[in-house]
Amino acid sequence: MCRFVAYIGKPIMADEILIKPKNSLMKQSYHALESEMTVNGDGFGIGWYNQSIRKEPALFRSIQPAWNDDNLKYNASMIKTSCLMAHIRATTQGGVSIENSHPFHYKEYLMMQNGGIEDFLKIKRRMINRLDEDLFQWVNGQTDTQYIFALFMTIVRENKKKDTPHSLDELTLCLSQTFAEIEEMKKAAHLYSPSLYNLVITNGKELIATRYSTQPDKETRSLHIASNAECYTCEKGFLRIRASDVKDYSVLVSSEVLSHKDDFWQKVPENHSITVNKDLQVQIRPLQ
Amino acid sequence: MCRFVAYIGKPIMADEILIKPKNSLMKQSYHALESEMTVNGDGFGIGWYNQSIRKEPALFRSIQPAWNDDNLKYNASMIKTSCLMAHIRATTQGGVSIENSHPFHYKEYLMMQNGGIEDFLKIKRRMINRLDEDLFQWVNGQTDTQYIFALFMTIVRENKKKDTPHSLDELTLCLSQTFAEIEEMKKAAHLYSPSLYNLVITNGKELIATRYSTQPDKETRSLHIASNAECYTCEKGFLRIRASDVKDYSVLVSSEVLSHKDDFWQKVPENHSITVNKDLQVQIRPLQ
Amino acid sequence: MCRFVAYIGKPIMADEILIKPKNSLMKQSYHALESEMTVNGDGFGIGWYNQSIRKEPALFRSIQPAWNDDNLKYNASMIKTSCLMAHIRATTQGGVSIENSHPFHYKEYLMMQNGGIEDFLKIKRRMINRLDEDLFQWVNGQTDTQYIFALFMTIVRENKKKDTPHSLDELTLCLSQTFAEIEEMKKAAHLYSPSLYNLVITNGKELIATRYSTQPDKETRSLHIASNAECYTCEKGFLRIRASDVKDYSVLVSSEVLSHKDDFWQKVPENHSITVNKDLQVQIRPLQ
Amino acid sequence: MCRFVAYIGKPIMADEILIKPKNSLMKQSYHALESEMTVNGDGFGIGWYNQSIRKEPALFRSIQPAWNDDNLKYNASMIKTSCLMAHIRATTQGGVSIENSHPFHYKEYLMMQNGGIEDFLKIKRRMINRLDEDLFQWVNGQTDTQYIFALFMTIVRENKKKDTPHSLDELTLCLSQTFAEIEEMKKAAHLYSPSLYNLVITNGKELIATRYSTQPDKETRSLHIASNAECYTCEKGFLRIRASDVKDYSVLVSSEVLSHKDDFWQKVPENHSITVNKDLQVQIRPLQ
Repeated sequence: MCRFVAYIGKPIMADEILIKPKNSLMKQSYHALESEMTVNGDGFGIGWYNQSIRKEPALFRSIQPAWNDDNLKYNASMIKTSCLMAHIRATTQGGVSIENSHPFHYKEYLMMQNGGIEDFLKIKRRMINRLDEDLFQWVNGQTDTQYIFALFMTIVRENKKKDTPHSLDELTLCLSQTFAEIEEMKKAAHLYSPSLYNLVITNGKELIATRYSTQPDKETRSLHIASNAECYTCEKGFLRIRASDVKDYSVLVSSEVLSHKDDFWQKVPENHSITVNKDLQVQIRPLQ
Repeated sequence: MCRFVAYIGKPIMADEILIKPKNSLMKQSYHALESEMTVNGDGFGIGWYNQSIRKEPALFRSIQPAWNDDNLKYNASMIKTSCLMAHIRATTQGGVSIENSHPFHYKEYLMMQNGGIEDFLKIKRRMINRLDEDLFQWVNGQTDTQYIFALFMTIVRENKKKDTPHSLDELTLCLSQTFAEIEEMKKAAHLYSPSLYNLVITNGKELIATRYSTQPDKETRSLHIASNAECYTCEKGFLRIRASDVKDYSVLVSSEVLSHKDDFWQKVPENHSITVNKDLQVQIRPLQ
Repeated sequence: MCRFVAYIGKPIMADEILIKPKNSLMKQSYHALESEMTVNGDGFGIGWYNQSIRKEPALFRSIQPAWNDDNLKYNASMIKTSCLMAHIRATTQGGVSIENSHPFHYKEYLMMQNGGIEDFLKIKRRMINRLDEDLFQWVNGQTDTQYIFALFMTIVRENKKKDTPHSLDELTLCLSQTFAEIEEMKKAAHLYSPSLYNLVITNGKELIATRYSTQPDKETRSLHIASNAECYTCEKGFLRIRASDVKDYSVLVSSEVLSHKDDFWQKVPENHSITVNKDLQVQIRPLQ
Repeated sequence: MCRFVAYIGKPIMADEILIKPKNSLMKQSYHALESEMTVNGDGFGIGWYNQSIRKEPALFRSIQPAWNDDNLKYNASMIKTSCLMAHIRATTQGGVSIENSHPFHYKEYLMMQNGGIEDFLKIKRRMINRLDEDLFQWVNGQTDTQYIFALFMTIVRENKKKDTPHSLDELTLCLSQTFAEIEEMKKAAHLYSPSLYNLVITNGKELIATRYSTQPDKETRSLHIASNAECYTCEKGFLRIRASDVKDYSVLVSSEVLSHKDDFWQKVPENHSITVNKDLQVQIRPLQ
């Protein structure tokens, strides 16, 4: 089981979230609070945007544990970003390699996941045969997550209407369709194991996240959101979140609560999606 | 372009071939003598057998250059083996990861390659759909070589006769069929680029190697063999080879000549196979 | 805090201790039973001897967590050894690099530690100036452990009598002197923090281990020994130990108990040394 | 032998120098034009400043070859900087580890080197005993370069006048004194081998570089400078340099000429220093 956090909003220094706080994601790679596995030592990755430089994000991923990584500390201290993703891995599908590390990058999109398709290998060939040739060739790793991303982008492309970019609602529908198609592939293969799609997709300006289990009564993962939030470090060195005036508006999505003392964190209900639009307005709705 | 060496015969310490000689494969990772690319710094791998312990081989692979690797030096100084493969990589297909490093291991077999399928990505899906489900699920990397190996094992399995192990000739035919099928896939995809199959497959007791180009007039790679050979280090510190009495009988197959001063090296003709049987008898014949 | 295990005795396959058991050291890199830190993900190392090949040991060390390392699994499955050391690291002094990974190798000796000198950096220069020039130049990392080893070898050399190898008792005295000298350096620097010397030194034929704290009332680490022991894997997949007949005689020294159900493990008292001689006879005595 | 490039001047995207040009440092890690060693595959490092964020630089260093590093490509595409250092390593002193990778960072300073102290290990203890305690404890690797940097900072500190920062001339004198002291240490140890100090030190606003050999008739390394220069990529994809108007003023210092077709590169004479002040004015003078 992995852990992740996504930030979108007012430009922030990456280390303010990832490194400096005593309860930062990187320091917590030792102990995940609401996670079954206590260690996320199978590499990590961050992805970030700087729209004044280019539309495409950058990645920094490593196959070593995050907790001792000097490159991460240095980089995070120089990255000012309005959209950031960070992921620490405890591997289930695919070996520990850069290619298998989240987030994944396709064109202007980043995607990361905490969850997975049980019995993935048994439907992998079906998924491969469903992909656009471009997207099939783009896949360079072995994780279920990268294949889910490729299937999603295939479906997005098929649903593309001339000259208009997808709305957030359309993208969310494509995500629903992705999950549904994988479920059909599993049924066709007589597989009845659960799949968990706790994931985040962003283009740096808008963001979609899902908390979704095909068998919510059996197995589920946590997902939390803090909106209209301003991150700061309290005098004791912990990351805290407070209500912001409009100017500081930002949204955090996280697999676990990052700051226990705040009531800012809202638990995302099972099988719901989050959308954050260009104006940082949040909608939490059931996933169809 | 990669470089490799395979040894089969009288048990030998691995470092006598790989490390100690001034012209060893590892020291030559800087300069490949007959190779277009001057550097093989994209990782390395060795595989070896110890039949007194188990039928399956062991692997040691790394994503760092071989020339400075202490683990390799230490390990090679303790490995006594009658069958050894070593490969240094200059990547063409697939990122620099352990999963993409040669040799590849399947059951009692090892396989490594210097060459590749041009336009591999364009027939990758066809190859995937030709594989046995087991072998498809076994593939954990992204190199053309691992897919060639998986296709070969699929064909071997299809041609399996009840209760009798494959003869070397049967395995060589399966290899021919593998190359032919890939060629057909390329034709079906209207691809007319060359493919080069300079590779070695072994089960630790017998060995097959091929020097094969689909367009030998256009592009080709070197392959050499030294048979009935005894390896030793001369007083100047170089690996040398001399004729052995029957007891020391061994066979070396190498992408480049390892010892220039010896006339022991025989150049394998284009589009030929080498078979080395359990008694270390060598046959070099045209590949059909 | 680190964890380690040392084995000396009847030749054994390394994976029987390190990999296969459900309670093996490598699987427990996630959870150390008696350790404060729950994760030992800052690399690992093994060292082993094969006297039929050479007197010097070999090392395999990595900066990645042990739990996912394929090279370790493969290597351990081929290593048959009468003396083995394994160490998983949670770094305190020195970055995560191969050079800083235990065990350390000097000539025919291996050494590893779970513990350390608090305020090491403040006496590091004193230690450097106490070392033989050879041993000073030999140090290639930054851990306190490697400097302790170098100081010990300096003292051993000074106490060398002509033409006779050191007895185990003499070596143990050198170890006592090493600890005492470091303590004097700390006093001279007005440092009153504790030092913990839970360590193992071997030449492949004999072994010394210590459980030693300069302030045993304040801070201490566990150390256990199983002697006259035969390791085996029980039908449930766990490493177990039973009394052996003379032929299977072996000794295990471990920072934590590896097999909970056996009463074979003996807790080493604080500030005691263990010596295991060539005939695998064990003595546990107070360290002076 | 290593290779390096330093840039100071008008803010530039790092990938414009390091990655995109066909003759970029990273692509040339295969072939150094004026270097004896053809491969710089023992890791790499970059350091850069963003004064609007903080005075201290950031580092990104890796133990893998630069030529295939995706993290480097991504990072460099997001780094806009007015002062950049890049170094590719072919190891001579110290193993291949992050701690031994250039540039080195101390407070607001970065330092990197192409050269070294022959017989370094034989005067290492003398150097250690010459260092300020702070700087001694700061050293976390094993390279001669990091010790030279620590000695330089020790001397800088000793020559510090109250409340006024060092002038460039004062710093250059400290550098001369550093070289002279090391030479004295070598003489005291009866060592007469050459030392080469081709190095760059910067605080992000000013820069000093030296081309210095203690035995210039015997052994020397190249150093080049392009001042009053504007970097751009020509239509064929190569890095080119042209005269700039004042606004684009920048200075490049490089171990090898990066762009062969330009007459902009000036060869730095042996045993000379370069200083670049806050206004990017360059002085090339003999080193005392």
